[in-house]
Amino acid sequence: MVVTGLGQCCWDTLAEVEEYPSPDSKAESGQWVEQGGGPAATALVTVARLGLQCRFAGVVGDDAAGALIRHALHAEGIDVTHLLTRPGAASQRAFIMVERTGGRRTIVWQRPTGAHLAPAELEEPFWSGSAFLHLDGLMEEASLHGVREARRRGIPVMVDAGRMRPGMRELAKLCDYLVAAEQFFLDLGWDGSEEQFARLADGLGAPTVTVTLGDRGSLTRHDGTTCHVPAFPVTTLDTTGAGDVFHGGYLFGLLKGWPLRETVIFASAAAALSCLHLGAQRGAPRLDEVIRFLVDRGIPVPAV
Amino acid sequence: MVVTGLGQCCWDTLAEVEEYPSPDSKAESGQWVEQGGGPAATALVTVARLGLQCRFAGVVGDDAAGALIRHALHAEGIDVTHLLTRPGAASQRAFIMVERTGGRRTIVWQRPTGAHLAPAELEEPFWSGSAFLHLDGLMEEASLHGVREARRRGIPVMVDAGRMRPGMRELAKLCDYLVAAEQFFLDLGWDGSEEQFARLADGLGAPTVTVTLGDRGSLTRHDGTTCHVPAFPVTTLDTTGAGDVFHGGYLFGLLKGWPLRETVIFASAAAALSCLHLGAQRGAPRLDEVIRFLVDRGIPVPAV
Ligand SMILES: Nc1ncnc2c1ncn2[C@@H]1O[C@H](COP(=O)(O)OP(=O)(O)O)[C@@H](O)[C@H]1O
Ligand SMILES: Nc1ncnc2c1ncn2[C@@H]1O[C@H](COP(=O)(O)OP(=O)(O)O)[C@@H](O)[C@H]1O
Ligand SMILES: [Mg+2]
Ligand SMILES: [Mg+2]
Repeated sequence: MVVTGLGQCCWDTLAEVEEYPSPDSKAESGQWVEQGGGPAATALVTVARLGLQCRFAGVVGDDAAGALIRHALHAEGIDVTHLLTRPGAASQRAFIMVERTGGRRTIVWQRPTGAHLAPAELEEPFWSGSAFLHLDGLMEEASLHGVREARRRGIPVMVDAGRMRPGMRELAKLCDYLVAAEQFFLDLGWDGSEEQFARLADGLGAPTVTVTLGDRGSLTRHDGTTCHVPAFPVTTLDTTGAGDVFHGGYLFGLLKGWPLRETVIFASAAAALSCLHLGAQRGAPRLDEVIRFLVDRGIPVPAV
Repeated sequence: MVVTGLGQCCWDTLAEVEEYPSPDSKAESGQWVEQGGGPAATALVTVARLGLQCRFAGVVGDDAAGALIRHALHAEGIDVTHLLTRPGAASQRAFIMVERTGGRRTIVWQRPTGAHLAPAELEEPFWSGSAFLHLDGLMEEASLHGVREARRRGIPVMVDAGRMRPGMRELAKLCDYLVAAEQFFLDLGWDGSEEQFARLADGLGAPTVTVTLGDRGSLTRHDGTTCHVPAFPVTTLDTTGAGDVFHGGYLFGLLKGWPLRETVIFASAAAALSCLHLGAQRGAPRLDEVIRFLVDRGIPVPAV
């Protein structure tokens, strides 16, 4: 059994600053760390750290960042056979300045220049043993191909909808779990109410729809009912990747066959733990850390 | 014959942005490049690219940035035997956002955490064959030891004075060439006039004193006279490292035995060429490029 992921991966440098530097100035940083990022890649790192086998498909350039991205995923035990290297291309990179108080983030990023994954590059071996497909929709054609191929094979699909992008409507219709960021619902014209969330979610087509709302937790719509799961209050250092870690925890619960509510609570706990660290992948917790976090709060954890 | 350098080296990431991002935003970059930097290291890269043998002493951490710094210097043919790696330490790093129009730079940097070079670490082999010592004064104790040791051995010394720092007064007294940034003279209370520059320069102790003034060129004081050399007008992309490349060109002219004025003109030409590229070391020109630049402008170049 393996969780297959498809989407974006990047190399992030994060620097903690006292406050965001004014233009033309020179600011000394606090902590300075480098690590992998990207929605789909970070979700898969979380799943791997929770103890499940993973396989990731995406593209990098043949630059230093590409080698670092590949190495970091490989070091988590993730199968990177389908992470393709585009000769002459630049990998996606980001520099993220995190303010020490308030955690406000300012990002400078470099767009990857390599060709997207083509449907023809997702061959048979990518699907072998797949128990779940997770994708972030950032490579439209490959994503649509992936979700159709997964359906044909009876593999459940989760889509991370960061915002409304070309192809997202179609992906939302075809997937089993749409787990969206607040921006995606704002792009749909959401007014923030539970009532309108229910209507919008029901209109998307996916049988289960979740929206994450940062420290306000999440709303999940399934089978005609909506459930709100609050965020766990933690001393947040940096929320980079919280949503992606949430997806990883969510996938884990589903694969363990847990009820939806317990699954979302587990996902929130994993995401809350990720907020204690700078960066996306560095903060993804191990299974024992999430269990301890929940047990410490008197929350029962279903059998793993 | 070898030029020995002593001081700072770092690893720079530069990203071109349309304009400096407002806090809490996400900005896509244009060009994104990584390369070595640091005043003394960049001056030596320039000297090496101009064709002379170099040896560099400094410290890095045992992190990825340290390996990249070492590799970049080594790739220029610089002897890095005296570039020491401090276990467990972080190397100096910087992220430099350069605005496309105007070239305004905003810098976030990480202080290196390794112990400075100690005088005892500058042993006999460092001095072997040295024809010139260049230092940026950023490691006070090693710098003072270096300049005294060089004097004792009859090796001429150039000091890059970026600003007034502890030990700078002493270094200025002991060196042969003090080549300072404008900030150093502003720190001395300079009002910007040639008259006061002459007085301040004469009071420092070094027989030759130059101050670089960005696109306003430089002033050089020697033997009771002051000479102004204008900057070469160029389509500037980024001035990171211009001063360091200026030092490299200056050292080259001195080692070739050129008159002071021709030396400074050559240094300005090298520095102007460096402004055409993003970053410090990437823009350091080769000898044939500087000669062509000067010849194209009808400026005679002394025999090399
Ligand atoms: N400051 C926070 N404190 C605790 N949990 C948080 C915090 N921010 C996010 N989370 C958790 O992570 C989940 C996803 O975060 P969110 O910010 O909505 O996603 P994204 O990172 O994609 O923008 C939230 O639903 C919540 O459970
Ligand atoms: N915009 C520019 N155009 C042409 N030459 C320049 C420009 N900026 C710097 N230079 C050259 O580089 C030299 C050093 O630049 P300066 O900015 O004074 O040093 P630093 O980089 O140490 O601040 C100047 O004296 C000049 O010759
Ligand atoms: Mg997200
Ligand atoms: Mg300088």
